[in-house]
Amino acid sequence: MIRLNASEPGFSTAFDTLVNARRESDAHVARDVQVIVTAVREQGDAAVEAFTRKFDGHALNETGWRIEKSDCAVALKGLDPELRGALELARDRIAAYHEKQKPADSDTIDADGIRLGARWRAVDAAGVYVPGGRAAYPSSVLMNAIPAKVAGVERLVMVTPTPKGEINPLVLAAAELAGVDEVWRIGGAQAVAALAYGTGRIKPVDVVTGPGNAWVAEAKRQLYGVVGIDMVAGPSEIVVVADADNDPEWTAADLLSQAEHDPTSQSILFTDDAGFADAVAAAVDRQIGELATKDVARQSWDANGAIILVPDLPAACPLVDRLAPEHLELAVADPEALFAQVRHAGSVFLGRYTPEAVGDYVAGPNHVLPTGRRARFSSGLSVLDFMKRTSFLALDEAGLQKIGPAAVALAGAEGLPAHARSVALRLRR
Amino acid sequence: MIRLNASEPGFSTAFDTLVNARRESDAHVARDVQVIVTAVREQGDAAVEAFTRKFDGHALNETGWRIEKSDCAVALKGLDPELRGALELARDRIAAYHEKQKPADSDTIDADGIRLGARWRAVDAAGVYVPGGRAAYPSSVLMNAIPAKVAGVERLVMVTPTPKGEINPLVLAAAELAGVDEVWRIGGAQAVAALAYGTGRIKPVDVVTGPGNAWVAEAKRQLYGVVGIDMVAGPSEIVVVADADNDPEWTAADLLSQAEHDPTSQSILFTDDAGFADAVAAAVDRQIGELATKDVARQSWDANGAIILVPDLPAACPLVDRLAPEHLELAVADPEALFAQVRHAGSVFLGRYTPEAVGDYVAGPNHVLPTGRRARFSSGLSVLDFMKRTSFLALDEAGLQKIGPAAVALAGAEGLPAHARSVALRLRR
Repeated sequence: MIRLNASEPGFSTAFDTLVNARRESDAHVARDVQVIVTAVREQGDAAVEAFTRKFDGHALNETGWRIEKSDCAVALKGLDPELRGALELARDRIAAYHEKQKPADSDTIDADGIRLGARWRAVDAAGVYVPGGRAAYPSSVLMNAIPAKVAGVERLVMVTPTPKGEINPLVLAAAELAGVDEVWRIGGAQAVAALAYGTGRIKPVDVVTGPGNAWVAEAKRQLYGVVGIDMVAGPSEIVVVADADNDPEWTAADLLSQAEHDPTSQSILFTDDAGFADAVAAAVDRQIGELATKDVARQSWDANGAIILVPDLPAACPLVDRLAPEHLELAVADPEALFAQVRHAGSVFLGRYTPEAVGDYVAGPNHVLPTGRRARFSSGLSVLDFMKRTSFLALDEAGLQKIGPAAVALAGAEGLPAHARSVALRLRR
Repeated sequence: MIRLNASEPGFSTAFDTLVNARRESDAHVARDVQVIVTAVREQGDAAVEAFTRKFDGHALNETGWRIEKSDCAVALKGLDPELRGALELARDRIAAYHEKQKPADSDTIDADGIRLGARWRAVDAAGVYVPGGRAAYPSSVLMNAIPAKVAGVERLVMVTPTPKGEINPLVLAAAELAGVDEVWRIGGAQAVAALAYGTGRIKPVDVVTGPGNAWVAEAKRQLYGVVGIDMVAGPSEIVVVADADNDPEWTAADLLSQAEHDPTSQSILFTDDAGFADAVAAAVDRQIGELATKDVARQSWDANGAIILVPDLPAACPLVDRLAPEHLELAVADPEALFAQVRHAGSVFLGRYTPEAVGDYVAGPNHVLPTGRRARFSSGLSVLDFMKRTSFLALDEAGLQKIGPAAVALAGAEGLPAHARSVALRLRR
C-alpha cells in the first residue's frame, strides 16, 4: 500500500505512476490463446476435448459434454432455503433494473415526407462464461444471463469448466433461476472459441459475455468481431472517497471487498483527514488477518492499495476521473455534490449505507463493469449488449426529388459514379 | 458473379459457401500492424514521423503535423456552392437523426426505498479516421464527426493521411462543417496508435472511429480495450430483394453502387423472376463499361457478386438473415411485410425509391454499418458509441436492512468474507 498526499511535491508524478500501472496480462498469454483459438477453429470438438483434458483434468467423452437442464433443476431444489431466497431476491431485482434498459424503436416521418427509423432486436444466441471449480460465482450467472433473457435472447448458452469433473451446484441453481437454455462443462480460451466458431457439438453464438481469467479475457479480445463481446475485463477496482465521519472499520471492509478478489485487484481511499487515513490503514491490517481470503487480500493491498490524502474531497474528483474506476463509493453525507463532479466511473455507490458489495449481489444494477480505466469510454453490461439496432429509411418519389440531387452531387465529388447513377436514374423518370 | 437457384439441389451447400467466404485481411496484416502499434507506443512522434515518411511519402516536420482550423475554414469558403449546399443538407439531416439517439438518464426510488439509476456522459475526446489521398470521403467525416458532437464530445480529433503531402479540401470543408476541433495529417495504423496511446504532440483520445483500409481496421481491432472503437469494419455489402416490377437498370445501378467501392465488396440480388434476373445481369454488364470505376466494379462483381432465384420473395428472408448484410434494399410494393421477416441487417432501404446511396449521403441514418455478417450482433455507428453509462445506487439504513442480508448470504456462499463483512458491519449497528 502506498500513502500519497496531494499537497506534497512529487504527488503528480507518483499519482501518474499509480494511474498508468499495468496490472494486466502479458504477451505470452496472447500467444497461448492464439494457439488454442486456432486449434478450436480448425479441429472443433477434438481440440476442445484435448484442451479440457489438459487444463481441466477430465475427459469430456467420459464425464459428458453437457449438463442437462434437469440437473440444474435438481441443484435448485437441493439449495439451502436461505440461499435460494437470496438468489431469487437478486434475480427479481436485477431483472427489474434491466427491464428499464430496453430501448425503444423509432419510426417517424419528417417534414420532407421521408420515413426514418431504427428497430432493436435481440441477438439469436448468446454465450455466458462462468468460472468454475472451487470459486463458484452464482452472482455472475445472474448478472450475465438475466440481461440476455430480458433482451429476448432465445438461445442462452452457459459454459463453465468443471476441473477434475467437479460441478458446482450453486452455479447450476443460478443457471436454472436465470433461464439458461444450455450448459456445457467446458472453460478457458477453448470454451470461448467453441462459442464463437461453433464446433460439431456446439452451435455458435452471436455474443459472448462473462468474467474469466487472463486467458478467457484474451480469447474474448481476440475473437471480438467474430462475435460480439461485453468488454475486455481486467482486475477489479474500488475507489472510496470518505470523510472522517465514517466508521474506519466500514471503510476498511469496503477496501478489502475488492482486495480479496485477486492479487491484481486495486483498492484506493481518498480522504481529507490524516487521522481517518491512519485509522483505516490500521483497520485494514487488522481485518485482513481475520479473513479466509487473507493471502489474496494481503497481496493485493500491499502491491496495489493506496491511501491518498486530499486537501478537501472535491479535490479528489479530478483524480478519480483519471483513474476512471470500476466502482466508486462516495461515503459522505451529501454524495450528490461529489457525484456531479465525477465524469468517469463504472458504477457509483452513494452515501455511507451503500457498500459496493450490496451492488455486487442484490441491488439490481449490473456488476459486470469496465475496469482498467475503461470507464472513460465503456459502460457496464446491459440489455443493449444482447441487442442490435437496424436503421431504416423509406423515400417516395417526391422525397427522393428533394434530397436525391444532393446525394448525386456528393457521390460525384467522391468519385463514385455508380452511387450517383443509382439515385439519378430514379430522378429522371 | 454466380447464379444460384434456391429450388435446385446443391443450393444449400453453394449458399453456405457464399455465406462463409472470407473477404477479410490476413495474418500478415496483423503482424505488420503489431510492429507499427508497438513502435508508436514506445517511440511516439518519432515512430509516427518515420511511418508517415515511409507510407505517405512526406516528412511531417517539413509539411507540418497539423492542419489548422483556419485552413478548414478556407476550404469551406472555397467550396463550390452546390457541393456546399449538399454537405449542409447532409449535416442537418444527419444531426437531426442522431439527436433522437441521445439516451435518457434514469433515477428512480423503488418500493424498498432504494434509489437506482444510470447517468450517460460523453467521452472526453474522440478521434475520427478519414481516408485520404485521391479518394476523398467528406461524407465519412460527417457520419463520424456529427454523432460525436451530438453526444457532446468536447475534443474531436480528425486524422487523415496526405499522401505526398496532398491535402483534400473537400475533407477539410466537411471537418469544418461538422465541428472537428483538431486535424492531424497522419494515417494508417500509426495514426490509430497515436490516437490510442497519445504521443508527445498528440494527446490520446478515448474512442476511435472511422473507415480505413485493412491496416487501419486491424489497428483498431488490436487497440480495442486501450480505446473504444466503433467496430471491426470489413468490405462493403449490399443485398437487394426485388420483384419483376422493378426497372432492371435501377437494380443494376444499386448493385454496382457497392461493387465500385472495392474489389472485395459484395453485391447480391434475390429475385423471384428468372427473366428479371437475366435483365439485371445484362444491365450490370452494360453499366459497368460506362463507369469510371469499372475496374474495381468488375473485379468485385465477378468475384463476389451473386444473383439468387427464390421461389417467392418471403423465401429470401431467412437467407438474408444468414448473410446479415450491411445494406438491405427491399425493392417491392409492400416492403413492410418482408421487413417484418428479416432479423439481421445493418440498415434497410424500403421500397423502389430508396436506393442505398441516398442513405450513404444525405438521408440521416449513419452509413457506418456492421459488415461481414456482424449485423447479427452489432449496430451502425450512433451517438451511444461516443457516450458511456454510469450506474448508481443509494441505500439508507432501512434499505440495507431489507436487501443486505441476502448479499451477506451470497457473499458467504461465494467464499468472499470481506464482501460479506462490508455489508454485515452496517447491519449490526
